Amino acid sequence: MTQTTPVATIVLAAGKGTRMKSDLHKVLHPIAGRPMLMHLLASAQTLAPARQVVVAGHGRDQLEKALGASATIAVQDPQHGTAHAVQQAEAALAGFDGDVLILYGDVPFVRAATMQAMLDRLHEADNPTAVVLGFAPADTLQYGRVIADGDRIVKMVEHKDATADERACTVCNSGLMAVRSADLFGLLARVGNDNAAGEYYLPDVVNIAIADGRTCAVVVTDDADEVAGINSRAELAQAEARWQHRRRQTAMADGATLIAPETVWFAWDTQLGRDVTVEPNVVFGPGVTVADNVTIHAFSHLEGATLASGVQIGPYARLRPGAVLEEKAKVGNFVEIKNSTLHKGAKANHLTYLGDADVGAGANIGAGTITCNYDGYFKHKTIIGERAFIGSNSALIAPVKIGADAIVAAGSAVSRDVGDGELRMVRAEQLMKPGWADRFHDAMKKKKG
Amino acid sequence: MTQTTPVATIVLAAGKGTRMKSDLHKVLHPIAGRPMLMHLLASAQTLAPARQVVVAGHGRDQLEKALGASATIAVQDPQHGTAHAVQQAEAALAGFDGDVLILYGDVPFVRAATMQAMLDRLHEADNPTAVVLGFAPADTLQYGRVIADGDRIVKMVEHKDATADERACTVCNSGLMAVRSADLFGLLARVGNDNAAGEYYLPDVVNIAIADGRTCAVVVTDDADEVAGINSRAELAQAEARWQHRRRQTAMADGATLIAPETVWFAWDTQLGRDVTVEPNVVFGPGVTVADNVTIHAFSHLEGATLASGVQIGPYARLRPGAVLEEKAKVGNFVEIKNSTLHKGAKANHLTYLGDADVGAGANIGAGTITCNYDGYFKHKTIIGERAFIGSNSALIAPVKIGADAIVAAGSAVSRDVGDGELRMVRAEQLMKPGWADRFHDAMKKKKG
Amino acid sequence: MTQTTPVATIVLAAGKGTRMKSDLHKVLHPIAGRPMLMHLLASAQTLAPARQVVVAGHGRDQLEKALGASATIAVQDPQHGTAHAVQQAEAALAGFDGDVLILYGDVPFVRAATMQAMLDRLHEADNPTAVVLGFAPADTLQYGRVIADGDRIVKMVEHKDATADERACTVCNSGLMAVRSADLFGLLARVGNDNAAGEYYLPDVVNIAIADGRTCAVVVTDDADEVAGINSRAELAQAEARWQHRRRQTAMADGATLIAPETVWFAWDTQLGRDVTVEPNVVFGPGVTVADNVTIHAFSHLEGATLASGVQIGPYARLRPGAVLEEKAKVGNFVEIKNSTLHKGAKANHLTYLGDADVGAGANIGAGTITCNYDGYFKHKTIIGERAFIGSNSALIAPVKIGADAIVAAGSAVSRDVGDGELRMVRAEQLMKPGWADRFHDAMKKKKG
Repeated sequence: MTQTTPVATIVLAAGKGTRMKSDLHKVLHPIAGRPMLMHLLASAQTLAPARQVVVAGHGRDQLEKALGASATIAVQDPQHGTAHAVQQAEAALAGFDGDVLILYGDVPFVRAATMQAMLDRLHEADNPTAVVLGFAPADTLQYGRVIADGDRIVKMVEHKDATADERACTVCNSGLMAVRSADLFGLLARVGNDNAAGEYYLPDVVNIAIADGRTCAVVVTDDADEVAGINSRAELAQAEARWQHRRRQTAMADGATLIAPETVWFAWDTQLGRDVTVEPNVVFGPGVTVADNVTIHAFSHLEGATLASGVQIGPYARLRPGAVLEEKAKVGNFVEIKNSTLHKGAKANHLTYLGDADVGAGANIGAGTITCNYDGYFKHKTIIGERAFIGSNSALIAPVKIGADAIVAAGSAVSRDVGDGELRMVRAEQLMKPGWADRFHDAMKKKKG
Repeated sequence: MTQTTPVATIVLAAGKGTRMKSDLHKVLHPIAGRPMLMHLLASAQTLAPARQVVVAGHGRDQLEKALGASATIAVQDPQHGTAHAVQQAEAALAGFDGDVLILYGDVPFVRAATMQAMLDRLHEADNPTAVVLGFAPADTLQYGRVIADGDRIVKMVEHKDATADERACTVCNSGLMAVRSADLFGLLARVGNDNAAGEYYLPDVVNIAIADGRTCAVVVTDDADEVAGINSRAELAQAEARWQHRRRQTAMADGATLIAPETVWFAWDTQLGRDVTVEPNVVFGPGVTVADNVTIHAFSHLEGATLASGVQIGPYARLRPGAVLEEKAKVGNFVEIKNSTLHKGAKANHLTYLGDADVGAGANIGAGTITCNYDGYFKHKTIIGERAFIGSNSALIAPVKIGADAIVAAGSAVSRDVGDGELRMVRAEQLMKPGWADRFHDAMKKKKG
Repeated sequence: MTQTTPVATIVLAAGKGTRMKSDLHKVLHPIAGRPMLMHLLASAQTLAPARQVVVAGHGRDQLEKALGASATIAVQDPQHGTAHAVQQAEAALAGFDGDVLILYGDVPFVRAATMQAMLDRLHEADNPTAVVLGFAPADTLQYGRVIADGDRIVKMVEHKDATADERACTVCNSGLMAVRSADLFGLLARVGNDNAAGEYYLPDVVNIAIADGRTCAVVVTDDADEVAGINSRAELAQAEARWQHRRRQTAMADGATLIAPETVWFAWDTQLGRDVTVEPNVVFGPGVTVADNVTIHAFSHLEGATLASGVQIGPYARLRPGAVLEEKAKVGNFVEIKNSTLHKGAKANHLTYLGDADVGAGANIGAGTITCNYDGYFKHKTIIGERAFIGSNSALIAPVKIGADAIVAAGSAVSRDVGDGELRMVRAEQLMKPGWADRFHDAMKKKKG
């Protein structure tokens, strides 16, 4: 049963994140090249929420910049606990009537299906006031417990307040909750702070509703990892590792060979075709699309690049944003491509930098070729014609155009356009000094003593 | 007891391999740089088989190309099960009288010793008609069971047909079987297809023989991994990982230091000497031989290369086929060597491409040196004499010869031979324009606004 | 209770290390870039020992070279067991009166706190003659056992001589021992060699003292890994892995993001600031200091380098000893920096070699720039002024000085100083041959047939 009531999400992101020891807001630390908060919002987006509110405290400026118009920011200052944090979203939800889903910016990998399951449960026949997401970790540690009879909650209890019997309960409270907007803020207003920390705790909402004789339910995820919080760099690394592991499995299931899957790092939006082979140690930054039958050799680094069918790159290929490799193009070792297109079958195999260039089909860029695309102030384009042959160790001083079938002789610094079928050679005379080297060696050996 | 009866192998390789999602035949997917089928055939080869038959279905052309003359191909088309597949080898085994070993192209890492143990068992005093290879996996899953009394088989049973008692049996059927040729095809002809899939199953051969009152035996491997089948890219990666793990252990036991063993990838034929140090992240392609006292720094990639004693390479050295580094030669960072020899003590330390070159003993190749070995149509050789000094950023335009003790000045594009002890300088005049840069900066800053 | 008695250490390092299969002395094999013996001596150094003795056998020359003046070498030749080895230190400890701590060169990661705990125990009220370090491994294997009543030793027993009851004891003998110098050599002299190997065993010292009615105590470490011995390259790799794992955890706890911690290798002395991001696959050699807010992209290799705040390097940056990157300097891909300083905000982004250079603040080093710092005999310096712009593919032939705000045109080989604000261009005339390339293509195609 999928409900059609409007949905709003409240993402709590006011924590200090002290254990991260970072000037960057905790929820903006990236995983797979994307801030963790954005992973969470993207999942929530599949619910088509009418409103998204992010409750910020410290580092609010950073959040505003990252979120842009994608969510409303509510401010919690000072910070008096999770219930207090949710209360701060009240103004942002004024006039909203529907289901409210409470999420956490540092619990970014809750699946959309799990969120949906919570909302669905809210609309079952017993009409619960709140639905809590529970999880059953291998080790229940100090987590609060959800004491329930079937899926009907009897009591939310903090670990420190729990009896031995209650601690034996293996269903823990993830903190995530779905509540109707009509109930939420009334219940929040009744939460007290009569505890050691003097804070207002969100689970009390459930206990108050139960005391009122209302029903609250728990949905238990079968994957405790999805509610793992990220509070330190070590937990960040673990979340990254889990994400990468899943992505690698998907890539292989879809028909890519990863010779050493544990050494391939994907970005959140990497797209891989079928019969793609990825050798060990390849890093995908954001924005990479790889078509079928592509081979990516070891030690390659790609970001913002598009690789068509039959392309081969690496080892040690570095593709930067705007690199477009058309069918069967080839990029070899120690080659950097930035904002450049290699048309069908073009090759740049060794020690080359191509920036702001357009390389014609079948062109061959010799070893050590450098496009001089920057004059210290502006970037300029290099246009290379089809089947052109750029001799090794050449410098192409942009803006410059090399014609189709043209040849640039090795070692040339070309600053003027080369016509179709023309040979351009920029090379000084061979100055020969027979015996000079022998005399130099003698002198130096004497000097060295 | 080693038997001396002639041996033939039948390798079943007719499966579609659908889960691989690949245009490449499943058994041709490489592990450690060699198609999995070739690993299997190489192991089988140690039995000195009189004939090797590969039963192909889909992708037969790819198999023919890969196998060449190393095996006879029999075709199974259409495909009606494993017993039917083995039957297709009958013509290829016409006139053969001996032991037949039935193997699987996607079970490539069965050890030769295990194959031999199966053949040996076939010749023990109780004279079994068939010997089945069993294995005892940690999880028996849906595998067929080998119900046996001691090592004498009572019954082969599919998982779905097994009773609870039979499922409690932990010896599973690997599918591998040894049968005398005189018995094999007669038994196969009696196998029926009265089952849901309408297929002819190989284990029935055993049940028919037992029903005839003949003895069949099971040999149980102590390493369940050796019969692991490869049906997906994930299983391919697991097989690669197991292979690499074993190889790394061997390398260390033989006296190599692998600082981070899990980041060194060997090829099937890599040879490593003693007191070789391999830093993290090194990839060996096929055809590499490394002598004693060699250091391979991080991020190096080797293929078809020969490294003599005392050689040092990397970090970021890329040795391609035909790279021969003689004693104490040194190849540094961002250097590519292809089809070239560096004689004793020669050095190429930085940002260099040497292709089709012969570098004399003690020669020093400066940073940024490029051999221009290709004119777009043909490859040409570069010969560099002993103790020659190639200045940085030079282009050597092949065919070209640099004499012993010669010096090429930095930045030269050398297209004509340089004599012994000669200095060659190819460099334009220094054009000085005092104040020009200052004026340029002013103009550009104005333009940028 | 910390005692103030003088301390001497005896490190046993006379073993052959046969299983290492190495010409390098076992205890000199490096972990995290430092010989394992030096890790041990550094930990022992925190006890401020009055004397440090290393007992050497095979490979004594290598030890002498590595130790220099940091320890006295005593020679055990021939080698008759551990008690005999300790005896060889007697002369080196002549006149010393205090506590003697017996350590093992191939057990390098005993913590200083553990050593201190042994010494402290030696000075407790019951005044033990010897304190043995015990450990409780997951698998007690063939280790000798420390049979104790509380922490008072009843008997030291070899595994092969142990009764079933004794073998059930889970406290094993690490071999480490603290004994007063006044007792040590007297006890050693009473150790016999009436055993199969004819060797003198150190644990007998304890049994003799107990037979004399004296007290001996055991201190049991809670970390069995710290007494792990290193006897093979596989154990060396395991020790390296444990060390790296701990170091990575520390780096993250201190505020560094390691995207893939298991692919970052630190050296023993690496220093990392806060908000440092390290991408996958980075190798730190010895001598690297990294300040706050530094980003190290994938595939970088650093050694002897200093990175100030805001620096960005890589991917594929190679920093060699003497590389100093000042605030916000930037080093890009396929760039090698050796013994050079990049002042504030200077950039070298692509395919460059800077050796023995001083690059002024804000200078921009174009792609493919090479400093020609070596003439085959001597190294020379390159000085580049503030805001200078070195055009791509240039060679700077040292010694040479480029002025502030100067521009070197692309493709120039500069051998003479360039003044402030000057443009220097070293480039031959553009030789144009219209149609030549077309004719060449025709001729070559004909030749290729």
